[in-house]
Amino acid sequence: MARTAEGGAPACRRRADRARLVADVLRAQILSGEFPPGERLPLEGELAREYRASRNTVRESLALLRDEGLVERVPRLGTLVVRNKYAHGLNRLLGLSEMLHEHGRVRNEVRAVTVVEAPPAVAHRLRLDPGSPAVYVERLRRVGGLPLSLDLTYLAPDVGTPLIGEDLENNDVFALIEEVCGRPLGDADITLEAVGADPHSAAVLQAPPRAALLLLERLTHLDDGRPVDLEYIRFRGDRLTMHGRLTRPTPGRTPEWP
Amino acid sequence: MARTAEGGAPACRRRADRARLVADVLRAQILSGEFPPGERLPLEGELAREYRASRNTVRESLALLRDEGLVERVPRLGTLVVRNKYAHGLNRLLGLSEMLHEHGRVRNEVRAVTVVEAPPAVAHRLRLDPGSPAVYVERLRRVGGLPLSLDLTYLAPDVGTPLIGEDLENNDVFALIEEVCGRPLGDADITLEAVGADPHSAAVLQAPPRAALLLLERLTHLDDGRPVDLEYIRFRGDRLTMHGRLTRPTPGRTPEWP
Repeated sequence: MARTAEGGAPACRRRADRARLVADVLRAQILSGEFPPGERLPLEGELAREYRASRNTVRESLALLRDEGLVERVPRLGTLVVRNKYAHGLNRLLGLSEMLHEHGRVRNEVRAVTVVEAPPAVAHRLRLDPGSPAVYVERLRRVGGLPLSLDLTYLAPDVGTPLIGEDLENNDVFALIEEVCGRPLGDADITLEAVGADPHSAAVLQAPPRAALLLLERLTHLDDGRPVDLEYIRFRGDRLTMHGRLTRPTPGRTPEWP
Repeated sequence: MARTAEGGAPACRRRADRARLVADVLRAQILSGEFPPGERLPLEGELAREYRASRNTVRESLALLRDEGLVERVPRLGTLVVRNKYAHGLNRLLGLSEMLHEHGRVRNEVRAVTVVEAPPAVAHRLRLDPGSPAVYVERLRRVGGLPLSLDLTYLAPDVGTPLIGEDLENNDVFALIEEVCGRPLGDADITLEAVGADPHSAAVLQAPPRAALLLLERLTHLDDGRPVDLEYIRFRGDRLTMHGRLTRPTPGRTPEWP
């Protein structure tokens, strides 16, 4: 598909490398909604022309997308998009229902609501005294009936205790906190990782064993800066993307490496 | 470990649920550097006390962290932290070398530098005319000698062509673009996903089959808003976290759902 930089013979690149390349651009088109669920992708021959690739390479790239669960290959029909992913914003702090309100109802299966003695590391993050109680909430969250995430939440006791009687099945914790406290949340520190699902988490999320998960740790503060909500959220990787916009710091600075 | 919300009998939760809970907090302590590589985690009995959990639960949680490659269990020594992950910021647009400069040298194995006809979807993102050339760069990026990411990059021809002769092995593309263009980059639109590695990507990254990867699509603009750099980056999930800070929008607004 390419001339080398030197303008010489066709680059001899492995087919798997070329297939990844085609798959990545097609994946982005699916995720952006350019090819929505139910739509047929262009025919193999057309994709081969677009990407200056062989039909074998195109077939291999479609197999990669099929293995990710994004498309299905239907004899005589072609390649159908069968799934998109929900887009979760990285630039604003929103609860899941707020984020996905156009995609249908978020339903939470509440697996636990208990008062616990906060483990020391949790107490430290929430700036609680050692041995202080915390409210622990565990929810399996479904959108469109399918599991999207498993959320483990520790709440500062004054914020969490009034939530125990609330409708946690149909409401975001964020909204409930703001209602109960009568003040808005401020910001949140997040850490994102990709991890393979352990067998039990995979089973709870109805995902294949070792399925790739997005693991989000999120420490949310009230608008006065006090941390009140520490969460560990496992999103099914095949059902969600995170998107945002990053800005280049200190424009014009000289790079500090050779 | 817990009283139920109703203050009644101990909650009868499955051990796997409790093990996940302990593992998540320990993982966060490892990632934050509280337990750096080489350090020994507290003994099982101590962790059991801290988390009000049984030793079996603690053992199962340590097994989860071992399966993720974060700790090793050494007979008579205990549980040693063997790996941390590099922290990649989500609030500022930085190249990998800029981001990780304190963690040692980023070394790029340049797998391809070629001029290609931009596939239509790529041309569209980079606002190039249909059939326009683009410069394609593929790099396997190593930190501390180990593969961290596989980066596929399409550059607008005027920006990419001068880079062909540059030292791509030792420099971030961002830095080279700014040097070559004589102007700073502006911002970037990113999309993050967790995906399981296809066999070939896993082999290139020296990761286990189906290993969880963080897949980052990033479209970077010059400071005048023109998109010049479209990348598809596969990070090994066991070697990198993304972290940032999110802010709650429009404080005080009333939640718009019931």
